[in-house]
Amino acid sequence: MRWSQMHIPTLREDPAEADAPSHRLLLRAGYIRQLAAGHYALLPLGVRVRSKIIQIIREEMDRIGAQEFLLPGLHPAEIWQRSGRWEEIFTTLAQELSSYRQLPQIWYQFRTKFRDEPRPKAGLLRAREFTMKDSYSFDLAPEGLDRSFDRHHEAYVRIFERLGIPAMPVEASSGSMGGSASVEFMCLSDAGEDVVAHCPACGYAANLEKATSRLAPAADGPGLPAPERFDTPGVRTIDDLAENFDASADRQIKTLVYVVDGRTTLVLLRGDHALAEQKLIDTTGAAAVRPAYPEEIRAALHASAGSLGAVGVTGLQVIADVSLRGRRDMFTGANIDGAHLRGVDVDRDIVVDTWADLREVVAGEACVRCGEPLQLQRAIEVGRIFKLGHKYSEALGASVLNADGKRAMIIMGSYSIGVERAMATIVECHRDERGIVWPLAVAPFEVAVVVAQPDDADTARYGAQIYEQLRDAGVDVIVDDRPDRVGVKFRDVELVGIPVRVTVGKRGLADGVVEVTCRASGETERVAVDEAVEHVRRMLASHH
Amino acid sequence: MRWSQMHIPTLREDPAEADAPSHRLLLRAGYIRQLAAGHYALLPLGVRVRSKIIQIIREEMDRIGAQEFLLPGLHPAEIWQRSGRWEEIFTTLAQELSSYRQLPQIWYQFRTKFRDEPRPKAGLLRAREFTMKDSYSFDLAPEGLDRSFDRHHEAYVRIFERLGIPAMPVEASSGSMGGSASVEFMCLSDAGEDVVAHCPACGYAANLEKATSRLAPAADGPGLPAPERFDTPGVRTIDDLAENFDASADRQIKTLVYVVDGRTTLVLLRGDHALAEQKLIDTTGAAAVRPAYPEEIRAALHASAGSLGAVGVTGLQVIADVSLRGRRDMFTGANIDGAHLRGVDVDRDIVVDTWADLREVVAGEACVRCGEPLQLQRAIEVGRIFKLGHKYSEALGASVLNADGKRAMIIMGSYSIGVERAMATIVECHRDERGIVWPLAVAPFEVAVVVAQPDDADTARYGAQIYEQLRDAGVDVIVDDRPDRVGVKFRDVELVGIPVRVTVGKRGLADGVVEVTCRASGETERVAVDEAVEHVRRMLASHH
Repeated sequence: MRWSQMHIPTLREDPAEADAPSHRLLLRAGYIRQLAAGHYALLPLGVRVRSKIIQIIREEMDRIGAQEFLLPGLHPAEIWQRSGRWEEIFTTLAQELSSYRQLPQIWYQFRTKFRDEPRPKAGLLRAREFTMKDSYSFDLAPEGLDRSFDRHHEAYVRIFERLGIPAMPVEASSGSMGGSASVEFMCLSDAGEDVVAHCPACGYAANLEKATSRLAPAADGPGLPAPERFDTPGVRTIDDLAENFDASADRQIKTLVYVVDGRTTLVLLRGDHALAEQKLIDTTGAAAVRPAYPEEIRAALHASAGSLGAVGVTGLQVIADVSLRGRRDMFTGANIDGAHLRGVDVDRDIVVDTWADLREVVAGEACVRCGEPLQLQRAIEVGRIFKLGHKYSEALGASVLNADGKRAMIIMGSYSIGVERAMATIVECHRDERGIVWPLAVAPFEVAVVVAQPDDADTARYGAQIYEQLRDAGVDVIVDDRPDRVGVKFRDVELVGIPVRVTVGKRGLADGVVEVTCRASGETERVAVDEAVEHVRRMLASHH
Repeated sequence: MRWSQMHIPTLREDPAEADAPSHRLLLRAGYIRQLAAGHYALLPLGVRVRSKIIQIIREEMDRIGAQEFLLPGLHPAEIWQRSGRWEEIFTTLAQELSSYRQLPQIWYQFRTKFRDEPRPKAGLLRAREFTMKDSYSFDLAPEGLDRSFDRHHEAYVRIFERLGIPAMPVEASSGSMGGSASVEFMCLSDAGEDVVAHCPACGYAANLEKATSRLAPAADGPGLPAPERFDTPGVRTIDDLAENFDASADRQIKTLVYVVDGRTTLVLLRGDHALAEQKLIDTTGAAAVRPAYPEEIRAALHASAGSLGAVGVTGLQVIADVSLRGRRDMFTGANIDGAHLRGVDVDRDIVVDTWADLREVVAGEACVRCGEPLQLQRAIEVGRIFKLGHKYSEALGASVLNADGKRAMIIMGSYSIGVERAMATIVECHRDERGIVWPLAVAPFEVAVVVAQPDDADTARYGAQIYEQLRDAGVDVIVDDRPDRVGVKFRDVELVGIPVRVTVGKRGLADGVVEVTCRASGETERVAVDEAVEHVRRMLASHH
């Protein structure tokens, strides 16, 4: 491929709209262009990287015996009306499976997905339109699902290793999908939208939506025989009460009011804890969860936020965080504006419908496994594997005959990787101040031959010769034959991120050498012209 | 790949909904399933064939220097509001081209397209959702466009040859796209929706929408000094007039009333000719063309269909077929119900605004080039190449600086191939009463090793061995290891259409041989076990 004939529109300046480093670099280096908010065109370099990523995923999927499908993008309404997910389309096709002998099956596809992302940002990291590899496993029994899940886990580890993404499997919320196990593959990065709680000591890692930690045991006094009301004029927050009434935040009960599938619900936490909303969703299995409006709060409790409490409340659902269990001598709102209660014994004074882990972990809290301090880090979710169970097979009646000739519901798993997000994540992990530093396996070209003076006949001839020899040896190579200054070409080759650069120039040729430069290390070697091709091939082989 | 683990749901019976042979066979052989009218899921066999087709197209596109893009499926409204075509999206990206030195560029993509097909039918031949390779060329001058067009023509010839589709390039209507040349690649087939006029003698071929023919010269008498009205009570058709008034159809003027972009228009043809509506569209460049309603006809001419004519008509657009030019002594309606005119001299008595070729060719008419009789045949359009000209570059302001440093509008071409339609067309061309007969280059597997008695240890061992040796030699091979009767397996292998079958059975092994069967010829050879792999490789090499 000749650079002069290829469309690689590099930009001199950082584009104004780019917020994440990968977004800025992919725009500048001519990989992508935005056509509308969250919708990107992949230019030829982008298509090359995407194809290599897809091929790596495909090879690893095929290696675990998965079969590639291609489903239509428009779906029959009757299927969506039942549950509205891609899972159902695959399950519909699985209705043709008839015998346990045909199981396990793993089916996958690469498909364009659309997401109604209200604020698309960070380029390919969070686009409205993207390619997803999604796969589904079909097994007879939970042990089969475990095996299919584990095989995907291994395949994903291999995929991210080959892509150069240091991904960490973390426990994740099963969310509204109703499954029994969920693991996300997270790449730590400031450009990420997720947060991972991680223990460097023992390796525990979980999405903040799901993470938990060990708390120091409380040492409450005996408290009072019954809650006692006292006036707290002007107190509106946990801090107000702590400062003015000797009620440290960890001795307060924070009362939040939520509407959970239409039902007004009190959510109780320790005063110094924050609610992890996803945990509330997971606990209740609700489809719609939102904070109550002020007028709803007043209608339910006859008081406003700042003086709310669950003592003596009846007729409302109460869900409390497990850290409140057994606590005594606590403070809480009295459901009278400007008044609170002290001496509250949670088990004695509050009717709790559900105890659950609801609080969001804070950095430095003790690891739930080993007790060492947890770290919180932003991360990009690059993959997800998920045990679906029987939900879709039961909804659609996908069953097989088992070995005893009896009908058995198929048990399913679902597994996904976002292709363009993986591409952007690689860039986040592999870059420097001069541009992208692609890992060899996904680089758009492995080698760039830069002809320093294309108007010099000898230089042009040797450049073309080395280019052709590399190409004929099966190397993915581009020759920069543009009539531009060599400095411009170096800058472009570095910005685009091609792993190996071979510079053919007048001065070197006078000594019978070319220069071979490694993009990652920046090191340059002078190599005899006749040995250049073999030298480059050895370099590439050692990287693979 | 093992048949027992792959999802190949073959059907015993022809599916009721299938109308075209390719539709029936692709369903029966387990390549596709319909999810909604016109929306098909590709099962693993279908994905394999599709991938091979795409790869062949990609190779031939790359060979002419084309670069692969991937554009988003959702487009910014402001682009669609200007003209509403994919062309515009590519042209938007071409705005980054700045110099004539960067031209020519050929850009392409494979993308899912949706078509609001009111009556989807014939399976993949006319689906609502399909994959399209579309490419666009960008050149500085018409000569450049000619070269890009010719290179596509050559690439398409190679692609269809490699796919096993006997495609014939035919002249086509440029339609509403406003271009200057349009060629369709047509595969003759009863399953097609197009009709091609074709001259076996000289090779002239054109879509019926565009085809023309040579007519015998008319030998009209001198006629009358002026048109003469006569009563024709009850006459409603050309035939009525011919039978009752000695006015053979070729001496009549047929007057049709159309609404062309809102303008009432008289369309004149010889009485025995039919209008090719596309030609009317091409001639007028109109976006909306339809026959007038009876009340619109009466309002315009004060008469009803059956007695219409253009003599003495003013204020209406009149478009006449060229075959009427210079005709004398003709018959036409008098715009009075139950009355006609005789002795009409077209040039003298009718004010024609536009003369154009409007009539539809009929089989047996003389070829416009050589005079031999034309044939009409149904055909499938498998590809199309099209000179767009400046339409989109002017609309979007895509220009470059030419060698003189002056701004020049880019000139464009557009080129397309439907991937799944190509797949179905291959099946239409390569099948017999037992199933599909894939050409080797696109077959889902090149070879099927059928293990006749998988429960016999020796047979299973030899079968596995031959399978593994073929696989390790790079042959695309599947082993049918199912516990079914050998007859069932043969039927499936033939239905699915795998080019070469190797049968490993007890009886043959007793003689030290396996059977090698060619799907296309049906011929079977007995080959020594040790020579089977080499024999098959030679067969495959001779097919490539």
